[in-house]
Amino acid sequence: MGVDAQKVVLDISTSLDGFVAGPNPTLGEPLGRGGERLHEWVFELASFRERHGKSGGVRNADDEVVAESLAATGAVVMGRNMFSGGAGAWQDDPNADGWWGDTPPFQAPVFVVTHHAREQLAMEGGTTFTFVTDGVESAVGQARAAAGDKDVLVAGGASLAQQVLGAGLLDELQIHLTPVVLGDGTRLLDHVSPEVRLEVSRVIGSPSVTHLRLRVLT
Amino acid sequence: MGVDAQKVVLDISTSLDGFVAGPNPTLGEPLGRGGERLHEWVFELASFRERHGKSGGVRNADDEVVAESLAATGAVVMGRNMFSGGAGAWQDDPNADGWWGDTPPFQAPVFVVTHHAREQLAMEGGTTFTFVTDGVESAVGQARAAAGDKDVLVAGGASLAQQVLGAGLLDELQIHLTPVVLGDGTRLLDHVSPEVRLEVSRVIGSPSVTHLRLRVLT
Repeated sequence: MGVDAQKVVLDISTSLDGFVAGPNPTLGEPLGRGGERLHEWVFELASFRERHGKSGGVRNADDEVVAESLAATGAVVMGRNMFSGGAGAWQDDPNADGWWGDTPPFQAPVFVVTHHAREQLAMEGGTTFTFVTDGVESAVGQARAAAGDKDVLVAGGASLAQQVLGAGLLDELQIHLTPVVLGDGTRLLDHVSPEVRLEVSRVIGSPSVTHLRLRVLT
Repeated sequence: MGVDAQKVVLDISTSLDGFVAGPNPTLGEPLGRGGERLHEWVFELASFRERHGKSGGVRNADDEVVAESLAATGAVVMGRNMFSGGAGAWQDDPNADGWWGDTPPFQAPVFVVTHHAREQLAMEGGTTFTFVTDGVESAVGQARAAAGDKDVLVAGGASLAQQVLGAGLLDELQIHLTPVVLGDGTRLLDHVSPEVRLEVSRVIGSPSVTHLRLRVLT
């Protein structure tokens, strides 16, 4: 990826009806009712398993898309709920370690947009969580600097995605569109201006997911 | 198409945020604010132009998808608003001829689901409009019979699509997903049960539209 200019890329799974999470997120079901179904396509893939310390798994076109994204990413930006595990979870302890475990799969600097200032967390495997309290522009800027010549991956959730897109900070969207109907929950593209102009730069598909890559036109 | 079993296929263009029409449909803007943008991809295509009595146009992968659909279709089912031109239009005269002109592009029997009984309209070019007042199941059944060994195309709008899907009458969806954000309007997949199980059977893309073909699993 070194020959291309650094990009800021939203990378997120959605339902066919546009949700990134189902209704009623809880500690036990942080993605809301049915929300796990949006990610089933990824669990069996070799690249995903490898990042989670597991061997084996499927190598197919979906796996290539995931491997490409992992290789291209130099830093990650996420919202506070994504760090801590859903809107309803961990609210009692703002200093909890989040739900990514001791060895988060990012293996890169992660910048968490939050209102709650706290010390950086250095996890096993190379992931650091840096808590940014002065907004998305600052978080994306810090991630850009930390990513070197690699890309910045915006991981979600929907609110952060909307802020980053609305602030004109996003170069591309990679939407992993699943043929799942959730019917309710949190929509990726709520509160996005119809003025936004996008163009499809790539489509790769399998029966369980369509990887839609879109360029933000300026 | 004769060797395959007859299928009932929803064929519809949506925005990236899932709308089939923008807000505030009027007689002058029957697809609502911005709704025309969902169909811009089709206007330049040779197959579309030919159906509208025009020569020339682009022959590309998008055109092949449209040509395939036109060749496969033996009968059409549509909702009353789609016949008459938007929710806000033609309400003053329930016997108006609709907004498809003297030579509608369907060139096939069209079954219009409506509460208003009226005589069949035979238009130039082979299109007939038959008005069905006893529900979607009857309309789809009549279209199946009229289509011979060809497919039945469910043309929309959203309400009809939801009824046909909800009644278990749909075999496939072909969603022409455009990289347009409308922000408001009529959503294709509102009121659809999360119990619906779909699988992607084909994806074909260009910068301006992604043709997503989905099978309804039973």
